[in-house]
Amino acid sequence: MTSEVALGRAGALLTIDLDAIVENWRRLQARGAPAECGAVLKADAYGLGAAPVGRALSAAGARSFFVAHLEEGIALRAVLDEPRIVVLNGLLPGLAADYTAHDLIPALNDPGEIAAWAGHARALGTALPGFVHLDTGMNRLGLSPDDQDRLAADPSVLDGIGPITWMTHLACAEDTGNPMSRAQLDRFHRAVARLPPAPVSIANSSGIFLGQDFHGDLTRPGAALYGINPTPDRPNPMAGVVRVEARILQTRRVDTPMTVGYGAAHRVKGPARLATIAVGYADGVPRAASGRGAVRIAGFTAPITGRISMDLITVDVTHIPETLAAPGALAEVLGPELTPDRLGESAGTIGYEILTSLGLRYARRYVGGVE
Amino acid sequence: MTSEVALGRAGALLTIDLDAIVENWRRLQARGAPAECGAVLKADAYGLGAAPVGRALSAAGARSFFVAHLEEGIALRAVLDEPRIVVLNGLLPGLAADYTAHDLIPALNDPGEIAAWAGHARALGTALPGFVHLDTGMNRLGLSPDDQDRLAADPSVLDGIGPITWMTHLACAEDTGNPMSRAQLDRFHRAVARLPPAPVSIANSSGIFLGQDFHGDLTRPGAALYGINPTPDRPNPMAGVVRVEARILQTRRVDTPMTVGYGAAHRVKGPARLATIAVGYADGVPRAASGRGAVRIAGFTAPITGRISMDLITVDVTHIPETLAAPGALAEVLGPELTPDRLGESAGTIGYEILTSLGLRYARRYVGGVE
Repeated sequence: MTSEVALGRAGALLTIDLDAIVENWRRLQARGAPAECGAVLKADAYGLGAAPVGRALSAAGARSFFVAHLEEGIALRAVLDEPRIVVLNGLLPGLAADYTAHDLIPALNDPGEIAAWAGHARALGTALPGFVHLDTGMNRLGLSPDDQDRLAADPSVLDGIGPITWMTHLACAEDTGNPMSRAQLDRFHRAVARLPPAPVSIANSSGIFLGQDFHGDLTRPGAALYGINPTPDRPNPMAGVVRVEARILQTRRVDTPMTVGYGAAHRVKGPARLATIAVGYADGVPRAASGRGAVRIAGFTAPITGRISMDLITVDVTHIPETLAAPGALAEVLGPELTPDRLGESAGTIGYEILTSLGLRYARRYVGGVE
Repeated sequence: MTSEVALGRAGALLTIDLDAIVENWRRLQARGAPAECGAVLKADAYGLGAAPVGRALSAAGARSFFVAHLEEGIALRAVLDEPRIVVLNGLLPGLAADYTAHDLIPALNDPGEIAAWAGHARALGTALPGFVHLDTGMNRLGLSPDDQDRLAADPSVLDGIGPITWMTHLACAEDTGNPMSRAQLDRFHRAVARLPPAPVSIANSSGIFLGQDFHGDLTRPGAALYGINPTPDRPNPMAGVVRVEARILQTRRVDTPMTVGYGAAHRVKGPARLATIAVGYADGVPRAASGRGAVRIAGFTAPITGRISMDLITVDVTHIPETLAAPGALAEVLGPELTPDRLGESAGTIGYEILTSLGLRYARRYVGGVE
């Protein structure tokens, strides 16, 4: 099916390559072996669809999935029977029964969550698995050093929780020269050494590339699965996953000096040709990329001119043959050349935020995955 | 229903006040009278739900709605029988029958779209309504000055299209001192004077506040309906519409100097107390607000510390009584004090982009509207 056909009545097409996600998962698994390779599917698999991504990775052999929210866990369990699903934001007060009803494992981020989960296990008369999160420097979620001391002094508060996994989260893993990662690893090992023996989980995507010391028993890649470069100071070892193509709605010739778009923010010296394209910041092209980002049309780069609107962008196509940049043709907004990392950079943010902002107006096409 | 109850199993609650949207529409209608007051519902009514917003405004008497995309028009028509619905992005090639099948009116942005729509009307043997968009300086969509000359020379190309509305779009309406708006208005009047007589539509939200000259026969407010200030240099004349409240998941005491979050970007001098809240950039709190934005907890302002994560933010609650900033309490992320305009400003963007980025993970509560 060509992109034009897949576009249908939409203004823009989002193509998600499930085979590339599976390929990335395999590369990360090989890189982190013999640790088990999990997969982070939070925020609807970084905007790409937790259900289709989860099915594809499950079919490829992934056995541990991570989400942020209880509701995300419930939605993922509805499509996946087998794998374990861990809810990273933790155990919400009074809702322990919702986790067990949907076979979800909470990350246990503080002593109160440990007590509530252990109490729920005892009430059910069964052991319940738990990921106990030890904070080693993010200062965001997880047991503080004091909490860890108290847990080491009295591990009986864990009774009823099992099997346990000890986990931590790295703050600077993508910055390979930063001593913070090693300091976090050392803190984690010192904490775990005083606690009951259990598997450990440390590395996010970038952590997998910090070397074997960081692999532990279970890795938790997210961004790299979706093609984000986990090693920003080196070439991207991951396959590209997303493509966004949008219709050229109209082209116009500008012969005299003129302004373009909101705020009349861009001045065309003229003569020039401009194309207006059916994608805007409501579709995740950040307004901050105004005047800085670009699209590709028939292999040519066309810079974004003027301010990005909610539903439209205007690009300069003066240097592109008129028949190639005509109404009805498709402009590539994200793809092999214009990666989420690169669009993020032109908007002063990261590829992650590009992916989670893609929104709902695209025609969506999934390539590959489970037959 | 209290916010805690409405939150259910979600991490954060988005409350949308349909009565406030209706009240804003009435204010805009009064301000622009005797012109008809339309309503722009594109991008899912700026992220707030085109179906409930459309039903509420239709019940209040709105008779003209505007969307960007054909698909948005089809979805809105499925819930609204009566009002006219205009598709601003225009007539997509080869899809004229989809517009008539769903009783949608295209904006006609170039001579090709006029020809296609007129041809479709003749083929059906009936007149079809059309909004003909005359560009007067946005240089984004609409008939160019040359196209306008040709149309004036031979208006027979419009045969079959009726009733017609002439429309244009202002580039700088929110900037009240900018001579661009008056120049656009003059260009528009000169163009319309040479064309067959028909109603005209000029003003977006801010345009309504530029005075009666800009009201024409039909206004097209969007942002102001949703509480965005249409007069940024003066107090906001609109009622607030959205509230976002998110759970405090965890608090922690920091006694020694420590870093917080990704990149260890924020250093707490200590002693301090931090709270981690279940909302992040995947929920529309822009990463660019890291270290600049704030939330409100029990009437206190709590600044965002460190980098905004995908699913979480960390705020400083040192100065807030411990019992008020405890796990389980709700932090206000958007509301009467922390408006979308203000959060946008702290992220280097506009309130519009805040609204369209809210995402799908919220529990949603609609207040008021149609019984």
